Amino acid sequence: MRQNRTMESSLNEFLSTLKFNTDGLIVAIAQDESSKKVLMQAWMNKDSIIKTIQTKKVTYFSRSRNQLWIKGETSGNGQELIRISADCDGDSLLLTVKQSGPACHTEQESCFDAGSAIERVQ
Amino acid sequence: MRQNRTMESSLNEFLSTLKFNTDGLIVAIAQDESSKKVLMQAWMNKDSIIKTIQTKKVTYFSRSRNQLWIKGETSGNGQELIRISADCDGDSLLLTVKQSGPACHTEQESCFDAGSAIERVQ
Repeated sequence: MRQNRTMESSLNEFLSTLKFNTDGLIVAIAQDESSKKVLMQAWMNKDSIIKTIQTKKVTYFSRSRNQLWIKGETSGNGQELIRISADCDGDSLLLTVKQSGPACHTEQESCFDAGSAIERVQ
Repeated sequence: MRQNRTMESSLNEFLSTLKFNTDGLIVAIAQDESSKKVLMQAWMNKDSIIKTIQTKKVTYFSRSRNQLWIKGETSGNGQELIRISADCDGDSLLLTVKQSGPACHTEQESCFDAGSAIERVQ
C-alpha cells in the first residue's frame, strides 16, 4: 500500500524500502511538476536522498566526481523537491520537482531534448 | 543538435551515440504519451533496443531472467513505442509509449504509484 508521509517523518522507513546497487546507488528520474516533462536521469546514494529530503534541494551523487552534487549549485538551475516516490520493487526513484531554468547543461529544457532520438513512422 | 529520424533508418547511427554500462545495459524510462505519467524504469541492451524499434513493441532486458522481455507478452499490458530519445550524454533512454492497461504488475497505472513515497510539507 502506498505510504504518503511528511518529509520530516519516516525518512528511515522510506530508506529501508529502497534497494541500492553494489555501488550504493539508485536510479533517480526527475520530472517537472507542472509541465510533466521528464527532465533528466541521474543517480542518488543514501546521503543524497537524506540531503534532498532535508533541504528540499535535489542533490544527486556524481559518479564522475564521486561526490554529492546539489543540482543547480553552480548553474543556478536547481530543483525544488515536491515528492520522491520509489517504484514497486524499490530500485528506482521518481523525483517530482519544480525546475528553475533549463535542466540540461546544454540549456535545453530537458536532457532528453539534447540527445539523439528516433521517431515512429506515423 | 537533436536528430529526429524515421525508425527504419539510422538505427546504427542512433546506437552509436549510446553509452552502455559494463553489463551492456542502459537505463530506460517509459512515459505515457497522453497522460505524461512516468510508468516504469527498466533496462535495455542493444538487442532490446533494436527489437523495440523494429517491432514497435517495447522490449526490455530482464536482469533477473537474463533475457529479453517483451513488455506485456504475458500480462497483455504492452507498450507501443512512439519515440525513443537518448539524453545529452547518451547513457539514459526516454521511451514515449502508448500503454495498454496498467504498466505495473501490481495493477497500478505506474510502478511509481506502487512503492513508498515522501511528500513535501506544503
